Amino acid sequence: MNEFGLIQRFFAEAAASRMTVCTDASVSLGIGDDCAVITSPQGQQLAISTDTLVAGRHFPIDTDAYSIGWKAVAVNLSDLAAMGATPHSLLLALSLPSVDEDFLREFSRGLFAICDQYGVQLIGGDTTRSPLLSISITVLGWLPTGQAITRAGAQAGDLIMVTGTLGDAAYALRHPHSPLQHRLDRPVPRVAFGQALRGYASAMLDISDGLVQDLEHIAKASALDAVLNVERLPLHAVLRRCFVDNPNSRAVLHDALAGGDDYELCFTVPERSVAAVMAEAARQQVQVTQIGQMLPRQSAKTQVQLRLHQQPFVLQQTGFQHFG
Amino acid sequence: MNEFGLIQRFFAEAAASRMTVCTDASVSLGIGDDCAVITSPQGQQLAISTDTLVAGRHFPIDTDAYSIGWKAVAVNLSDLAAMGATPHSLLLALSLPSVDEDFLREFSRGLFAICDQYGVQLIGGDTTRSPLLSISITVLGWLPTGQAITRAGAQAGDLIMVTGTLGDAAYALRHPHSPLQHRLDRPVPRVAFGQALRGYASAMLDISDGLVQDLEHIAKASALDAVLNVERLPLHAVLRRCFVDNPNSRAVLHDALAGGDDYELCFTVPERSVAAVMAEAARQQVQVTQIGQMLPRQSAKTQVQLRLHQQPFVLQQTGFQHFG
Repeated sequence: MNEFGLIQRFFAEAAASRMTVCTDASVSLGIGDDCAVITSPQGQQLAISTDTLVAGRHFPIDTDAYSIGWKAVAVNLSDLAAMGATPHSLLLALSLPSVDEDFLREFSRGLFAICDQYGVQLIGGDTTRSPLLSISITVLGWLPTGQAITRAGAQAGDLIMVTGTLGDAAYALRHPHSPLQHRLDRPVPRVAFGQALRGYASAMLDISDGLVQDLEHIAKASALDAVLNVERLPLHAVLRRCFVDNPNSRAVLHDALAGGDDYELCFTVPERSVAAVMAEAARQQVQVTQIGQMLPRQSAKTQVQLRLHQQPFVLQQTGFQHFG
Repeated sequence: MNEFGLIQRFFAEAAASRMTVCTDASVSLGIGDDCAVITSPQGQQLAISTDTLVAGRHFPIDTDAYSIGWKAVAVNLSDLAAMGATPHSLLLALSLPSVDEDFLREFSRGLFAICDQYGVQLIGGDTTRSPLLSISITVLGWLPTGQAITRAGAQAGDLIMVTGTLGDAAYALRHPHSPLQHRLDRPVPRVAFGQALRGYASAMLDISDGLVQDLEHIAKASALDAVLNVERLPLHAVLRRCFVDNPNSRAVLHDALAGGDDYELCFTVPERSVAAVMAEAARQQVQVTQIGQMLPRQSAKTQVQLRLHQQPFVLQQTGFQHFG
């Protein structure tokens, strides 16, 4: 089967069949031409982002194909969630070492499963041969004009909050086949909650490279410092148990502070909006924890201070760096 | 220098400095957040496409970094040109084996040179480490609503036309350091001419995989057959000389019919619009050649018939296939 047959079978036909189901008026032209053509709904801006996953770097080399397809979409939808945007569509640039039909069937199953769950259409793509499996996805979403939640809007005094639990994916990476394996393989983007934070969160991003490193982006963009209360970090029961068993082990705290791949949202909230945020969290059954506060900047260089029970806490490495 | 320093220096800062020069109201949020945010101009649709270049597959491994940066953008802009769209912005997903500052400086110089030439802004990206250099770019452009030139609009009787000369890049690949080297390394997307064809061309695409294979896409999408007059193919003087020297050599014709990477436009035109198209070609000093005609489909399967001086002409391989 040649390149066209391959794309046709696993992606273009699958995408086209979904297109007729969706009948989304905003997609004037879907997959299969030189470009896709889409129309902005009235009063909406387009949010767009791209993220690449490389085998052995962004997922273990033995990850199942379904999970790879799922995760490649999930990490991109997480970027939309982090702006408060509503997912709309995506383009897939897939580099493959060979035409393995079993792999492609499962990969596309995983990809379309999460697309269907979030109402996302595959509107374009490119398939190339490469010695290494690599997936670049570009996601598109809509935002009511002017309502994007950027990294730059935090104010001194705003509370720092996170969804879910932290360090799960890093723990799973260190402990294969643990009960947290799904957190590494099948991250769930916080799309609905991200949208609900429009008008409440002053700044937001998703935690992909590690809490401390990512929070530093908000602090820098907002020209502030931040203080994190380490004892407040929301830990999954599995990680809490590790910590209780061996309080001297810093591995668990390191996972929570610097482990990447959690795709939880980290956001800042002015005091006046905290009640509304917590009510929405309860409504959506999303765990939300206050873990720190934004502070006026003390010096020219932004600082994220870590405190464990009021004492300074030192972290060896702040987060995942592709080119460390 | 870590990942952030790297992106910052060669891409984000360069992109941001250009943003202030452009002050494009349609870019509400540029590079550096979870997503870029852009606003559609009134009455315009968004055209979007993604294309990947893999080292050693889409360009020779020893191609200079400036040309790689140029070409990665050029092949994507060519997809916009093929719809008649006006380029607007792009996202860059760059996978690198290592942080080679010389490479990155030259790569970004080439990338921004062509971006500046076409008024395109870098609004987002992702840099990852990978054993192999690979570049996925997503381009965005605008189209007056309903005026996209797709592959599906050709009618029986429409003339088939191409811009420029064909087979130059394939020839250059077979003859390193020939006078046609620039055609392989620094393709020039036919952006202005593509836009000028709105209202005149009934179908269009860019020739990236080889004329015959690409024309077959138009024929299939339009449910037609096509006939190509091989003796009419526009050949560069270098290729013409080869052919005159050795008319039995089919290599040159093969380059022109099946060689990829030319990024010329192939389009169909109803008789009534031919004069207008040729006038625009003269105005823009773009070579345009009529090379064939669309025909009613003779059977269930679309056919692209090749004729050399009225005689059937057989081609061994129709075009570039990534998974042949």
